[in-house]
Amino acid sequence: MSNGKIKIGVLGASGYTGADLVRLAVPHPNMEISILTANTHAGKKVAEVFPHLGHVDLPDMTKVEDADWGDVDAIFCGLPHGTTQDITRSLVETHGDVKVIDMSADFRLRNMDTYQEWYGIKHRAPGLQGSAVYGLTEFYRDDIRGANLVACPGCYPTAVLMALLPVVSAGLVDPADLIIDAKSGVSGAGRAAKEATLFCETGEGMSPYAIGKHRHAPEIEQEISKAAGNDIVVNFTPHLIPMSRGELCTCYVRLEGKATASDLRAALAERYAGEPFVRVLNEGVLPATQHVRGSNFVLIGVFEDRVSGRAIIISTLDNLVKGSAGQAVQNFNLIFGLDETTGLGQMPLFP
Amino acid sequence: MSNGKIKIGVLGASGYTGADLVRLAVPHPNMEISILTANTHAGKKVAEVFPHLGHVDLPDMTKVEDADWGDVDAIFCGLPHGTTQDITRSLVETHGDVKVIDMSADFRLRNMDTYQEWYGIKHRAPGLQGSAVYGLTEFYRDDIRGANLVACPGCYPTAVLMALLPVVSAGLVDPADLIIDAKSGVSGAGRAAKEATLFCETGEGMSPYAIGKHRHAPEIEQEISKAAGNDIVVNFTPHLIPMSRGELCTCYVRLEGKATASDLRAALAERYAGEPFVRVLNEGVLPATQHVRGSNFVLIGVFEDRVSGRAIIISTLDNLVKGSAGQAVQNFNLIFGLDETTGLGQMPLFP
Amino acid sequence: MSNGKIKIGVLGASGYTGADLVRLAVPHPNMEISILTANTHAGKKVAEVFPHLGHVDLPDMTKVEDADWGDVDAIFCGLPHGTTQDITRSLVETHGDVKVIDMSADFRLRNMDTYQEWYGIKHRAPGLQGSAVYGLTEFYRDDIRGANLVACPGCYPTAVLMALLPVVSAGLVDPADLIIDAKSGVSGAGRAAKEATLFCETGEGMSPYAIGKHRHAPEIEQEISKAAGNDIVVNFTPHLIPMSRGELCTCYVRLEGKATASDLRAALAERYAGEPFVRVLNEGVLPATQHVRGSNFVLIGVFEDRVSGRAIIISTLDNLVKGSAGQAVQNFNLIFGLDETTGLGQMPLFP
Amino acid sequence: MSNGKIKIGVLGASGYTGADLVRLAVPHPNMEISILTANTHAGKKVAEVFPHLGHVDLPDMTKVEDADWGDVDAIFCGLPHGTTQDITRSLVETHGDVKVIDMSADFRLRNMDTYQEWYGIKHRAPGLQGSAVYGLTEFYRDDIRGANLVACPGCYPTAVLMALLPVVSAGLVDPADLIIDAKSGVSGAGRAAKEATLFCETGEGMSPYAIGKHRHAPEIEQEISKAAGNDIVVNFTPHLIPMSRGELCTCYVRLEGKATASDLRAALAERYAGEPFVRVLNEGVLPATQHVRGSNFVLIGVFEDRVSGRAIIISTLDNLVKGSAGQAVQNFNLIFGLDETTGLGQMPLFP
Repeated sequence: MSNGKIKIGVLGASGYTGADLVRLAVPHPNMEISILTANTHAGKKVAEVFPHLGHVDLPDMTKVEDADWGDVDAIFCGLPHGTTQDITRSLVETHGDVKVIDMSADFRLRNMDTYQEWYGIKHRAPGLQGSAVYGLTEFYRDDIRGANLVACPGCYPTAVLMALLPVVSAGLVDPADLIIDAKSGVSGAGRAAKEATLFCETGEGMSPYAIGKHRHAPEIEQEISKAAGNDIVVNFTPHLIPMSRGELCTCYVRLEGKATASDLRAALAERYAGEPFVRVLNEGVLPATQHVRGSNFVLIGVFEDRVSGRAIIISTLDNLVKGSAGQAVQNFNLIFGLDETTGLGQMPLFP
Repeated sequence: MSNGKIKIGVLGASGYTGADLVRLAVPHPNMEISILTANTHAGKKVAEVFPHLGHVDLPDMTKVEDADWGDVDAIFCGLPHGTTQDITRSLVETHGDVKVIDMSADFRLRNMDTYQEWYGIKHRAPGLQGSAVYGLTEFYRDDIRGANLVACPGCYPTAVLMALLPVVSAGLVDPADLIIDAKSGVSGAGRAAKEATLFCETGEGMSPYAIGKHRHAPEIEQEISKAAGNDIVVNFTPHLIPMSRGELCTCYVRLEGKATASDLRAALAERYAGEPFVRVLNEGVLPATQHVRGSNFVLIGVFEDRVSGRAIIISTLDNLVKGSAGQAVQNFNLIFGLDETTGLGQMPLFP
Repeated sequence: MSNGKIKIGVLGASGYTGADLVRLAVPHPNMEISILTANTHAGKKVAEVFPHLGHVDLPDMTKVEDADWGDVDAIFCGLPHGTTQDITRSLVETHGDVKVIDMSADFRLRNMDTYQEWYGIKHRAPGLQGSAVYGLTEFYRDDIRGANLVACPGCYPTAVLMALLPVVSAGLVDPADLIIDAKSGVSGAGRAAKEATLFCETGEGMSPYAIGKHRHAPEIEQEISKAAGNDIVVNFTPHLIPMSRGELCTCYVRLEGKATASDLRAALAERYAGEPFVRVLNEGVLPATQHVRGSNFVLIGVFEDRVSGRAIIISTLDNLVKGSAGQAVQNFNLIFGLDETTGLGQMPLFP
Repeated sequence: MSNGKIKIGVLGASGYTGADLVRLAVPHPNMEISILTANTHAGKKVAEVFPHLGHVDLPDMTKVEDADWGDVDAIFCGLPHGTTQDITRSLVETHGDVKVIDMSADFRLRNMDTYQEWYGIKHRAPGLQGSAVYGLTEFYRDDIRGANLVACPGCYPTAVLMALLPVVSAGLVDPADLIIDAKSGVSGAGRAAKEATLFCETGEGMSPYAIGKHRHAPEIEQEISKAAGNDIVVNFTPHLIPMSRGELCTCYVRLEGKATASDLRAALAERYAGEPFVRVLNEGVLPATQHVRGSNFVLIGVFEDRVSGRAIIISTLDNLVKGSAGQAVQNFNLIFGLDETTGLGQMPLFP
């Protein structure tokens, strides 16, 4: 921390999440980027991989194994699941002080069997799993402050849990009847070249995908179960929308007792009062992904359902910011004792 | 019907529905376009209003009141709701033989109180309402054949009812627990200049709209109630997607008794066997709006829900074709004793 | 030709050009699809590779080497350049009667050195090159009628040459001062999975590419040189636009002598009078890719330049139709003595 | 200037330019927003007109005539042309100290006849015209510092002049042979509800517009003429691209003497060395609007033309930032003696 800056490394810096982390890190007053890894692009300048970052003086991309971790204070991991475990374990063993803020899926699930079931591999760092804190900032703030390893939630779980946890915890809705119709922009699928995410495949059209099989489902269920106090299974149906960024989750809930949509709105407003990045919308205001683009905000709206005894909660965020890199920075700020909003003042970009 | 062609008039020809009707009518072997009305564009050539139709020899746009109905055999109405009633009543009074295929909302609802509640005006042609046939072709085929006035369903009701009517009728799902998350392209909002549908407002983002207030809800409920045998209220939540055409409805259903997703798929496949425009997809095949663009097809997929006792039915269509002009032509074919698929062989345009 | 149909094979059927060829071939009254090859997708059903074609009864995809050419009358080649030469040579040697309509670049260039310079490989069927006819239908109609091998032009050359050949031939513009600013939708880059054509890379933005290096430049120059009577080099600068289909070329020309923009328009209108797929627009009418989508039309507009002695010619077409599969079908019709417009009546799809 | 902040008013705050000014002004450390005017939305909260700004505490929208100019230090004008003149004249007469930073077209043209010819109205504040400084920051920096009225350039002129002025001034290109093919996102057309800019009209397609008639042409010519030392007419042909933000101008130039593309690149690089918002790209690097989105950057690339004696200069910027609100803030910083980059550190948003 010479010059007062905290030295960071970004692993998997050539993906969209990595790029957005860099976008947030460069102007962050307390961060200095020391290492950028990107195995397939190792040896390249950032400007070659991301021309929009060409004006910034940054270290070249390197291989993970070639990185010098010597003076790094914190690592942001944006690697594919599986990979993160080995690197994190190795880092923890050799550089015990380094803080790991993981944006991958590797340390989100408490139950190793569930991990193996959904990710198809046996977890290779189960010992670390216990010390990992689930990085949903607004719900695990105190734990995150003292953590060495933070497992940032997936983009969908962030949007869904922000909408549902308070009303489940308060007993206002039936946790056994949660239907989540989720919509995401294409950046959620990553930067790997795949036919399915070519412009011509996803443009001017939309479709559901991974119905009943999306890996964010067990993550949502883990936290909802915890809030509900018993094992919960949810419907979670994602759709791919022809936009680059943005996510919107329409949650259909059954009201408990005499609860109303207004009660849900009031409970959410109370729960998030004072939260810098959460806005519970007034009655009648419609959330839109356009209103959070590029920012760390989550918007939540509550609506009456014409079907008696039901309501609709809708949340929206930018999947690359509050859904990933932004929340990671928020957690970094907590860990290093900074104001939680440091470097996260980006205004939504509209249009 | 000189030259063996059926003379048609298109009212409201300067909107997207009108344009698509013209797109289908021009190459239709049995149609001849005699009248095109478009009040704000009266006096203009079609090529001025729709340059993509500039290669076709068509009558100029005229005002409704200036049209010569003398030798017209059929009228396609694409006017805003409210307007259609007066014109239809007047036409029926003065030209009793003319067939009216209405693509507006004016004659869809059987209950005049419901109409007034949702459309905010008292119906001005209640006498005709009784003789109007609901133009959901695959369900009212016989009635349509003999009808003088066909009220073509809205785009959303077409997609939703095709997905749900067979399984509700068969008692396979609980009609009291239907949740319909609907997504539509922007052309559904029409061609009138509105800030909300500007490119910059709707591009690169998405949002819900008209939650619990969309006028297609009572239409869906009317037909579901009929199939269920009692009054049904449904959840119907539409979303605006950044694409011009296409509609996809994700219907969350509760299974009755021991019914399974496979049972639903089988029931739908049996119900639609032989239907030229309906394809029930094999297990695991995902419906996408890209796969129906520009065509009269409806695709329906059925999926297991991780939540026990539930399933998901997803339907998709092109809102301007099977959701409007295409189904209108399908009904026209029935009325005039033609093969139902005449002029509707457009292949889906992908990409 | 049992059942009166001409049996065709489509090579490279899993790409966008191949798919559009199938879209046009299925409803074509004189075609029957016998073979579909797609090496990486060999063994798959068409519906797996192209769900939007799932309603059509088609042969499964096969490897080129496994295809039975026995009773095939015509081959449409949509293979990558290089590949086509060997297959075509082999076909001609073993099935002399089969007609080859090549949509690749392999037989477009007369000069084998130019081919080698731009495509980086030595041509492997130079003997066939001499018998290949350049398939720009409106300019080589008579030659195409008798051809065994038609080399359909690239999409850009089609748009550019339709705009420029008549005015260069007539001596109305200076062929040494042609600046062509070209814009294309993303489907022009093909269906291979590449980072550069992912939705997130090309959406909500645009850029030039292959400046001074695009392989369509020598093709344009070959034909312009022929029309001009001497060797011509042109500026050709393509740009990638966030749309799937469509191409628009803005050609900046220097007028010869006292020629005016009106003279150019008149010359083009006269040249294309009676052409079924070419529309020279009236003064002041703006061409747009939206007006040709999905159809075989080319629109051409001529505009005055504020710079004295200059004018602007703008042409637009659908790169997959008149720019590829549509023109291929047009040439097929000529070869087999059919009306040139057979099966090409698709109306532009707008919106 | 209590609390050390400079009080600003934004006129025409309900348009896209106004919104982007607010996006930049809110986090600007030296600005405080005192007045927001928007005549048709007068009385509304900002959150109603722009939900993405709903988290900021801002004054309600008011009518221009109801605004209290008493303690305002600077005005940003985003009004339609024509309107600005009266308001500016009135403000200058009554509040002589207020600085006006005009983003409209009213004070850009030196020649009042040219203004009348292109804007169709007689200028109503010709006296002020003389004192207005053309706000192309990198070229009029010293004049701007002392100005009371800055006329910020149009978005196209900014992009074009940044690319061309240095090479015209240096005599490297022929000013009489400048061809500018310009491409813009739809936000350039403003937020007024117009059929032509609906999503369905502009999506999935593109077209030229205002050929030879765009009002940015005389502005470009004014400055190019000044640099060239004689009256210059340029070709300027704009195109509408299906994206919200971004602008890219492809300038085709004829080289003077033995100048090469490398000479142009070197001259531009030298001219802009040290400029915080201008990046002259290395040989072979392609500019893209995606690389400047949301930021105040201009990227300029120079490319060889295959046509001997010619070259291509391409510039790109975000039309709402460097093309409008960003440059306005840059000029504000100069006027008030702040560091020119204050509040303009937004990183490009990609994807």
